[in-house]
Amino acid sequence: MKRQSKAFVLGARTPRESVGDGLVRQLLGYDDSILMAKVDFEAGAVGTVHAHTHSQVSYVVSGEFDVFIDGVETRLGPGDSFYIEPNLDHGAVCRKAGVLIDVFSPARDDFLSKDHE
Amino acid sequence: MKRQSKAFVLGARTPRESVGDGLVRQLLGYDDSILMAKVDFEAGAVGTVHAHTHSQVSYVVSGEFDVFIDGVETRLGPGDSFYIEPNLDHGAVCRKAGVLIDVFSPARDDFLSKDHE
Repeated sequence: MKRQSKAFVLGARTPRESVGDGLVRQLLGYDDSILMAKVDFEAGAVGTVHAHTHSQVSYVVSGEFDVFIDGVETRLGPGDSFYIEPNLDHGAVCRKAGVLIDVFSPARDDFLSKDHE
Repeated sequence: MKRQSKAFVLGARTPRESVGDGLVRQLLGYDDSILMAKVDFEAGAVGTVHAHTHSQVSYVVSGEFDVFIDGVETRLGPGDSFYIEPNLDHGAVCRKAGVLIDVFSPARDDFLSKDHE
């Protein structure tokens, strides 16, 4: 059986999951090769530095973030984006409340636990 | 040589390309497995129905869109998103000016022509 989301994923009808202090995640569209998630950050919320084997691209919808990738930190705002090569350390600190769109390839198996199916 | 974008892709410093009547695209982060693009739509602009072998996920940052996927059309607004399985016909008509974030896996070779390198 194919693992994939619905074609239309409406924000107002999609579960929101607390994934840390001041961090709320919505799982959006996905299949085995790609997965999109929306993350709402409160000011001061921290995406702790970590690494994974997936490629990641992210888009700053709103807010301000200090984004750390492999030893370099940059302040990003709306319209900015970033790319994380597999296995590079990365993290973010939210300086002004906002939203990131995070997209991974392949899908994040850890985001697709039974709780979401 | 690896094909990939910079880690930080600043909106104000990234080329904008007209890709149709009322459509402007910015190529954001990418590698061979994933590619993100921002598309600005004027009201009335049309993403013509087409299909491709890539998986696609898209996020509505702003505006209103009638999105068509495989025979089903739905009106989407900010915070909504959609997933397009490989080879499915899809398109969009912009009803209120706005922005889509389109992400593909694998990368769109046609977006990564010499002009962008």
